[in-house]
Amino acid sequence: MQLLTDLRSIIKDDTRVTANETVINNHGQDLTYHQPSNPDLVVFPKTMEEVQQVVVYAHKNNIPVVPYGAGSSLEGHAIPIKGGISLDFTEMNKIVEVRPDDFIVKVEPGVTRRQLNKHLKRYGLFFPVDPGADASMGGMAATNASGTNTVKYGAMRQNVLGLEVVLADGKIIRTGGMSFKTSAGYDLKDLFVGSEGTLGVFTEITLKLTGIPEVIQAGKAVFKTVEEASQAAENILKAGIRVARMELVDEKTIEAVNKFSDTDYIESPSLFLEFDGSKAAVEEDIRFTKEIIDEAGCVTFQFETDEKARNLLWHARHEAALSVVNLVPGKRLTSSDVCVPISELSQAISDTRRLVDTYHFQAAAVFGHVGDGNFHVLIGIDPNDAEEVAAYKDLNRKIVAYALERGGTCTGEHGIGMGKREFLRMEHGAAVDVMGSIKRALDPENILNPGKIF
Amino acid sequence: MQLLTDLRSIIKDDTRVTANETVINNHGQDLTYHQPSNPDLVVFPKTMEEVQQVVVYAHKNNIPVVPYGAGSSLEGHAIPIKGGISLDFTEMNKIVEVRPDDFIVKVEPGVTRRQLNKHLKRYGLFFPVDPGADASMGGMAATNASGTNTVKYGAMRQNVLGLEVVLADGKIIRTGGMSFKTSAGYDLKDLFVGSEGTLGVFTEITLKLTGIPEVIQAGKAVFKTVEEASQAAENILKAGIRVARMELVDEKTIEAVNKFSDTDYIESPSLFLEFDGSKAAVEEDIRFTKEIIDEAGCVTFQFETDEKARNLLWHARHEAALSVVNLVPGKRLTSSDVCVPISELSQAISDTRRLVDTYHFQAAAVFGHVGDGNFHVLIGIDPNDAEEVAAYKDLNRKIVAYALERGGTCTGEHGIGMGKREFLRMEHGAAVDVMGSIKRALDPENILNPGKIF
Repeated sequence: MQLLTDLRSIIKDDTRVTANETVINNHGQDLTYHQPSNPDLVVFPKTMEEVQQVVVYAHKNNIPVVPYGAGSSLEGHAIPIKGGISLDFTEMNKIVEVRPDDFIVKVEPGVTRRQLNKHLKRYGLFFPVDPGADASMGGMAATNASGTNTVKYGAMRQNVLGLEVVLADGKIIRTGGMSFKTSAGYDLKDLFVGSEGTLGVFTEITLKLTGIPEVIQAGKAVFKTVEEASQAAENILKAGIRVARMELVDEKTIEAVNKFSDTDYIESPSLFLEFDGSKAAVEEDIRFTKEIIDEAGCVTFQFETDEKARNLLWHARHEAALSVVNLVPGKRLTSSDVCVPISELSQAISDTRRLVDTYHFQAAAVFGHVGDGNFHVLIGIDPNDAEEVAAYKDLNRKIVAYALERGGTCTGEHGIGMGKREFLRMEHGAAVDVMGSIKRALDPENILNPGKIF
Repeated sequence: MQLLTDLRSIIKDDTRVTANETVINNHGQDLTYHQPSNPDLVVFPKTMEEVQQVVVYAHKNNIPVVPYGAGSSLEGHAIPIKGGISLDFTEMNKIVEVRPDDFIVKVEPGVTRRQLNKHLKRYGLFFPVDPGADASMGGMAATNASGTNTVKYGAMRQNVLGLEVVLADGKIIRTGGMSFKTSAGYDLKDLFVGSEGTLGVFTEITLKLTGIPEVIQAGKAVFKTVEEASQAAENILKAGIRVARMELVDEKTIEAVNKFSDTDYIESPSLFLEFDGSKAAVEEDIRFTKEIIDEAGCVTFQFETDEKARNLLWHARHEAALSVVNLVPGKRLTSSDVCVPISELSQAISDTRRLVDTYHFQAAAVFGHVGDGNFHVLIGIDPNDAEEVAAYKDLNRKIVAYALERGGTCTGEHGIGMGKREFLRMEHGAAVDVMGSIKRALDPENILNPGKIF
């Protein structure tokens, strides 16, 4: 194959340019229901220069380039639906520089979240964005990932300070930097964050760090109804309490966790909370929170400080996604990801729960990052069962339409990928044409992750 | 004049389309040293539709359109250096909708900061971005303004949720929305924020609000040297104390304030601080801060809770800019605006102070938002004194080069405008070409605020 020969002459390490069937298959699918589509080959670059040479070659020969991080994305971002080169960043996983006094770290895109936080612990620092999966920083930046503690610490956009990017024609740019703020020209940094590999390939990422707080306390509050639980969440936000995490998990999810993990959690809607900061501030937050949730009808409230006990308390939340899917053999993950304004949240969650129930899926859970107004409907489906796929898509359309009518977004954190393209124009109308004109200006041959977003 | 006739046929209210000499002159200059340049006429639109019609006309006839808010920008953004239409938003100053439960307000671009916060008080909410001047929300969004409490609450980018924009061809788009986070397509919202009127004209802005904190305490700490003061600031940040504001004002500035306001503040470098939050948290913050500043050599530390006493305590900071300039008749404002990584801050401030002193300007002060690593050298110059202008430009180039060498930015909050165009490529290199390609894609005829940024 000419492509293999050519790329091996660029990379000069045959093990890092491969058309091996297993490797190809692994890079052609993810954990979700999205249809697999294999790359022609997989390249494992080690340096920015190698990335650049591969992109220059691809540009000259009009071959798609699809960046690949940890493969944990949920909308098929890394599936090369038009074939071409899967650019796997596993071997570009160096932590380039830690500047503890500046609260800054520079990493290569293959560095994963756990790897980074393990390394940072010695400095008393951590990187706060936590999407659950042990995702790569490149992938997280590419989808503007967020997660459980975004309510306090922001999403990737608020925590990426700078990017080194290889453009479609192989030119290198550096955008953003090490300053905590800047008004110097157009905000390219935030344009590339969340561009899902369609505008450029990241080769270095500068991240903003946070000091590990003095005290972390986790809490779990059980309610009789999902309305009460989400109303409590809404009231906590309105009271101005700066929760570090606030997750709602509905009774069906807890039921799935109990079955899958052989636990016996109360099968009722639950709020999982985390508070962090100085001792005095955390104590005051918890006292105030307790008042609010009691008033909202909380049945039991438990909290823990010790790391192990905290993890145990949050176990049902951590296991939620996998439990729901793994409960039914052969099912694969779908995940809606809408976000609504805070005042719409409790109504949206209970309306959505009712809507989901009318579809009678074997495995369906509602849970989410209610502090951001973001919640997921997670359903396990068989991607080869056309009827089930159609039913899911129909349900998903209704969930998104409901959120958009209330001023929300079709995706709070997963991105558009291949799964939500139809919703982009529903949400943004003519602004999609502006996005398209930027795409054409930066990648006129459409070689960068073609078929995603648009 | 054909232009006047044509626009009066569009706006149909002659008082709102004017070539009156005084009005024209007012729109052709600002408070700074930048050379005036008049628009051909000034239009005061009242609705999005009027803005759209004006832009469509300008687009068809290749006439520059320069948005004008409160005229408080510091880099000549609103000066129509190629003439054309000055689009003054004074009459588009409605607060469109407050959604207190969502922490959201929608405003027209002419709404000013004080007008907004006065209106929001009844809801127990405020809009935290505070650049000092009573700027308009449109102008603040256009320059990604920030200010004294950005260290805690972020700049405009973190507080603008959505924008309605009239594009160069008159098309309307809405970007962002009412969700607290989104990963739906390219981040156009943050591309338009900070685009300085060169990519589109804002007609409605959705802002994120913050609850007025339970307790606000202001503090003032006086030091013997600027090194000690800035080291104290650096240590407060490193300790993870979430100050709401942290401003450094050097001795020359206090001297100017004393002369101008007939006060007798100690003429020594001072840190102006503000803490907000719950009572317990604020008390703990102040106790911890006191330890840090004592260790750094603080001579006196004073704090106040009551609003009037707080304003009095901060008086010297509030008056800093005007005092320096007004002290010397006929001088106009220049203001450098660099930002450096936190660990470089104390060295940068003392090196810069020394550098400034070698130039012997009559009025020169160093002060800034040290919590962000952002500081200003404020110098009053006579714009008609070519030698003085040249000396200032020479000094400014050195200040910027110093900051860029240390990984900083040439502008933390004022923007590029006409004053910093030469620095954009120094800072961003080839990324400026990407900015240029976006400008050409969105405004190929270059009618929107031509001559700014590029």
